[in-house]
Amino acid sequence: LKDINNVEDAKLVKLNPKEMFKYGFPGPMHDFEDRYQYVSCYNRQTRNPYWVLEHITPESLKMRNGDRKGSFFREDENIPEMFRAKLQDYFRSGYDRGHQVPAADAKFSQNSMDSTFYLTNISPQVGQGFNRDYWAHFEYFCRGLTKKYNNVKIMTGPLYLPKKDEKDGKFKVIYEVIGNPPNVAVPTHFFKLVVAENPTENPKEEKVSVAAFVMPNAPISNETPLTDFEVPINALERSTGLELLSKLPKNKITPLCKEVKCQLV
Amino acid sequence: LKDINNVEDAKLVKLNPKEMFKYGFPGPMHDFEDRYQYVSCYNRQTRNPYWVLEHITPESLKMRNGDRKGSFFREDENIPEMFRAKLQDYFRSGYDRGHQVPAADAKFSQNSMDSTFYLTNISPQVGQGFNRDYWAHFEYFCRGLTKKYNNVKIMTGPLYLPKKDEKDGKFKVIYEVIGNPPNVAVPTHFFKLVVAENPTENPKEEKVSVAAFVMPNAPISNETPLTDFEVPINALERSTGLELLSKLPKNKITPLCKEVKCQLV
Ligand SMILES: [Mg+2]
Ligand SMILES: [Mg+2]
Repeated sequence: LKDINNVEDAKLVKLNPKEMFKYGFPGPMHDFEDRYQYVSCYNRQTRNPYWVLEHITPESLKMRNGDRKGSFFREDENIPEMFRAKLQDYFRSGYDRGHQVPAADAKFSQNSMDSTFYLTNISPQVGQGFNRDYWAHFEYFCRGLTKKYNNVKIMTGPLYLPKKDEKDGKFKVIYEVIGNPPNVAVPTHFFKLVVAENPTENPKEEKVSVAAFVMPNAPISNETPLTDFEVPINALERSTGLELLSKLPKNKITPLCKEVKCQLV
Repeated sequence: LKDINNVEDAKLVKLNPKEMFKYGFPGPMHDFEDRYQYVSCYNRQTRNPYWVLEHITPESLKMRNGDRKGSFFREDENIPEMFRAKLQDYFRSGYDRGHQVPAADAKFSQNSMDSTFYLTNISPQVGQGFNRDYWAHFEYFCRGLTKKYNNVKIMTGPLYLPKKDEKDGKFKVIYEVIGNPPNVAVPTHFFKLVVAENPTENPKEEKVSVAAFVMPNAPISNETPLTDFEVPINALERSTGLELLSKLPKNKITPLCKEVKCQLV
């Protein structure tokens, strides 16, 4: 199917919709922020990150110069005020301010730990049974990967997934929006894409260990096997709308959960 | 509040999360397409446009070389297959394939009319009482603006707005996703931002007539005044996450509905 070519016809009638951009390009903009230990990409419509991407190593986790007690949550003033997630939105919402890059992954410096407290790295998470429990154990599991791999990169973010409504059989996305007026979306799920590597002498032997996980933003029993939440990468691509590892040849990918036990203690 | 600077600390531990982009940048990408009479920006997560932007003039509407009967809906193969809206998704969904740039605005050429049938210009719309009725009358109203203004630019798109759940008092976004497996979001609302201008000899006298409207994707009685759906531009910015007319000085803006009767006959 060839693209329809109407350029000559449109020229004839002298139309130029793009002229409107002289009054400003509408976006959507992706507020991309470089926090060095992690980078984040913010969604102005949901007032959540699209994703955050961090790097941890055995060395970075060994250093301990940051203390969580010295950090406080802060609004990210790089985001225009009208699109910004606010501390007030979370207040008495019933949800935790859930780190996407965990504070505990940035203990190597107080500044780096502090930078994980920007609300551009935060999503509303169910506290009991999730953020303070299963999800926290999952983050601990990810840190543990540095025992086997020298470089671990983790992309984390929220999802808004459809669910079958048993009453009418239709698939629906349903999520709360907290704040008054409503401002910050409460994701239905969260994902992590884990990419783990070790240095090789021969680039031909290079391989990359990969796993993707999706969990509901809800209490999860500690007995639930982590592998219950593993998903194929292309399923995660479909639900995020993101292209994941698209330039990484399939034959270089090893399933992470075949190399390490994907379980939470 | 100064940005936290942890660049030195992060260098010390040699972290570089961005290295992962060598395996491909995840996006979100905005598939921007130039169809000459209109431009579109596609959302890979909702499989709807973010927005489409068209230009109509008295001359473009006068020419009649295109016939709707010669056009057919088509998938947009510029969108990667896994993020693409499909004809199959709409089939028996109960929703119309709702043009965002109306076909009737592109009668000046068959090619231009055809190009409005790409699914990147389409969102699921309630047929009876909306797409075939109130929304169609609204589109007719917009065409009528070319009687008074030489240049009319219209941005149209879907919205997913929260609504108070009377049972628990919480604000929730609820929308259906059509297709099997679920693929295309059904917006709760649609917006149009109308920008109308006439040529001036003196650039200092230049002014721009502007109005923004938001309507529910639901049957609307023909008696409902159009002005019921007018919203301030900054309210539309908040709900779309877009920056609208940000470079247009406020003192050049005239409310369109003060110059023309904003009513649907
Ligand atoms: Mg946490
Ligand atoms: Mg229509």
